[in-house]
Amino acid sequence: MSATREIEALIDMMARLPGLGPRSARRAVLHMIRKRSVLMTPLADLMQKVAASARECLNCGNIGTGDICDICASDNRANGMICVVEDVADLWALERSGVFKGRYHVLGGTLSALDQVGPEQLRIPRLIDRVDSEAVTEVILALNATVDGQTTAHYIAEQLEDRVTLTSLAQGVPIGGELDYLDDGTITAALNARRRV
Amino acid sequence: MSATREIEALIDMMARLPGLGPRSARRAVLHMIRKRSVLMTPLADLMQKVAASARECLNCGNIGTGDICDICASDNRANGMICVVEDVADLWALERSGVFKGRYHVLGGTLSALDQVGPEQLRIPRLIDRVDSEAVTEVILALNATVDGQTTAHYIAEQLEDRVTLTSLAQGVPIGGELDYLDDGTITAALNARRRV
Repeated sequence: MSATREIEALIDMMARLPGLGPRSARRAVLHMIRKRSVLMTPLADLMQKVAASARECLNCGNIGTGDICDICASDNRANGMICVVEDVADLWALERSGVFKGRYHVLGGTLSALDQVGPEQLRIPRLIDRVDSEAVTEVILALNATVDGQTTAHYIAEQLEDRVTLTSLAQGVPIGGELDYLDDGTITAALNARRRV
Repeated sequence: MSATREIEALIDMMARLPGLGPRSARRAVLHMIRKRSVLMTPLADLMQKVAASARECLNCGNIGTGDICDICASDNRANGMICVVEDVADLWALERSGVFKGRYHVLGGTLSALDQVGPEQLRIPRLIDRVDSEAVTEVILALNATVDGQTTAHYIAEQLEDRVTLTSLAQGVPIGGELDYLDDGTITAALNARRRV
């Protein structure tokens, strides 16, 4: 290889990012080298800053820069609702919609006997504590509609059912979705939950 | 958004890399934040190092750490052959095969009247100089089999035809390729260049 060892090491490391393989990592590195002053150096600076400052919120598991994230620190978000999500990416997706004004609880995964993920690994005890300490009235289980996600939702529901209102996201046809392309399960769910026009 | 401004800026910048969009940039950034000590910090360090050291070879356009790249600096590669490629990625692909022992000339694109790319922008005068100064006997035109690539190859061939042997890569069925999936042009080329078994 004519590329220097550092460039090769950089390609190998970029290829470890999700969504990038060896080929796309090479393309990305070449692109960065071509734009090293306007892209590569600022990107590296930002990564250093974020690596130094980012941490998980001790309360909810969201990623922020302090021990407690902005959402948990804001009194405006204390509306008695907690939305339980699997992952910070799900939290970001909900925040982008801008419709939810409460707080979150990021599990960091789903229960899995195979992978030895139990309630403790998922901050479920912390969620139960929060229901009491933050005067929570409703817990929205916004877990993925997968088998593991629904198993985890079921487990949490069992732990909390006497204490708060438990809700889950509606299932049905996505906005802009075409029936022809939907799976049977979604069509069944949408039909069962049909509403009067 | 609950993510801090730095994280958002990082996602925006990652999304500018080829092969990554907003969604995959978010996934990559989350992954890096989770692995900040083993992945994000070392990656940022490497990017800083490469951004500071990488530069284009003044002779051939390859990327290296000095004014002259390793291949141009090595006497072992002075076998009188220059392989002309569009891009450093193409050079890397040829180097991975390990079969070419000569030197390269990286054009950095193709001729394009629309984008106002002329011979000067593509280091073509430098290629013509090299043919004389490096005692070159064969120039291999390893340009992409696209219209622009072939136009550029044709132009270079016209400039050099009296001075050196000009060759181009063979066209035909890729190794492991299935005829059923090949386009008509490739099948035509493979048939026209058929060889005795």
